[in-house]
Amino acid sequence: MTITITAFECSPDGGKGLARDTRVRWALEEAGVPYQVRLVSFHAMKEPAHLALHPFGQIPTYEEGDLVLFETGAIVFHIAEQHAGLLPVAGDARARAVMWMFAALNTVEPPILELANATVLERDRPWSQERLPLVRDRVRDRLCQLAARLGDAEWLDGTFSAADLLMVSVLLRLRSSGLLDEFANLAAYVARGEARPAYQRAFAAQLAINAPKPLGG
Amino acid sequence: MTITITAFECSPDGGKGLARDTRVRWALEEAGVPYQVRLVSFHAMKEPAHLALHPFGQIPTYEEGDLVLFETGAIVFHIAEQHAGLLPVAGDARARAVMWMFAALNTVEPPILELANATVLERDRPWSQERLPLVRDRVRDRLCQLAARLGDAEWLDGTFSAADLLMVSVLLRLRSSGLLDEFANLAAYVARGEARPAYQRAFAAQLAINAPKPLGG
Repeated sequence: MTITITAFECSPDGGKGLARDTRVRWALEEAGVPYQVRLVSFHAMKEPAHLALHPFGQIPTYEEGDLVLFETGAIVFHIAEQHAGLLPVAGDARARAVMWMFAALNTVEPPILELANATVLERDRPWSQERLPLVRDRVRDRLCQLAARLGDAEWLDGTFSAADLLMVSVLLRLRSSGLLDEFANLAAYVARGEARPAYQRAFAAQLAINAPKPLGG
Repeated sequence: MTITITAFECSPDGGKGLARDTRVRWALEEAGVPYQVRLVSFHAMKEPAHLALHPFGQIPTYEEGDLVLFETGAIVFHIAEQHAGLLPVAGDARARAVMWMFAALNTVEPPILELANATVLERDRPWSQERLPLVRDRVRDRLCQLAARLGDAEWLDGTFSAADLLMVSVLLRLRSSGLLDEFANLAAYVARGEARPAYQRAFAAQLAINAPKPLGG
């Protein structure tokens, strides 16, 4: 059955791979599943046709026959359930992989989203410079705990899983902040994720759409 | 097999049911599964013994034989997978329920966490009063989208599921802000969740530990 996802017509990050469609592309590439992409403009994202697919007016969405999903974590989980290679088949190892999926999105990502709000949405507010160290410290606290748990392990819990896919994707948002470089094992962990051929293909696919266009012509 | 969860020895909310163990208690009550509770002090939460169970030093945790889980969303999902009544058995309806679980925790809860940080952690900062309306508007935007999707439906997608359990729990954090009352259908949705006998039992169980103690004696 044909799978269609949505992505930004023009990603705010200019092709750095931080838009959430990259997470879904990565999962589909790990699973070896072909997919189509429908690009959506910022304007169209808030129109009824797209809101019918995604009530929060964001990307990505996932369509497969009659099934329509939004919410990246759920899309990645669905792909992982349908195809081998992204989740342990059953038992405690599977429950722990799901645990780390939720941890990436509900424990590690929220302070990172808050940092993004502080540096982008509130950049020009009078409190911006004074408040920023506080927000960075909240992220640093989480990274410190995550680094302590990861130690020198290759992945979060045994072999690579959808949990690593999401955690690496969440941590990638920190690259420009410099915070990731304070934790050598986390930086190496992220680099291992980026080195996977499936990630490389996902990254290249979004870059092909979002890379800055040369002027003129 | 005996199930043991952890909870605050003394919850910061004084028994309002907002600590995340209430979410797990609610799921266990919906499933009709007995459980034990081990109370953890703020000090003990940051000690090695608890960090071995929960790398981020929080509650709740979930122990069942050799399986140790942290992260509320994952614990609720595990309970829903093991017992009837919290998730559709299979197919598209199940995928959509999981979608709403992630939506509650990764799309609706992050701005609510940011509001909690703004009103608690940053209450005495010089920017507090000027910044608060901005943060409240971020929450309001999400609620507006959620209210539009819910409409006059009873639950998010057909019958009550773990997704409603998490979404209601997330929205309950807003009660003291007054924001919930701006959306009549969301307020009614939360009230339907609270009216469930399983929620009532979960709430009473945490209140028995956290209710303010009378002075004297």
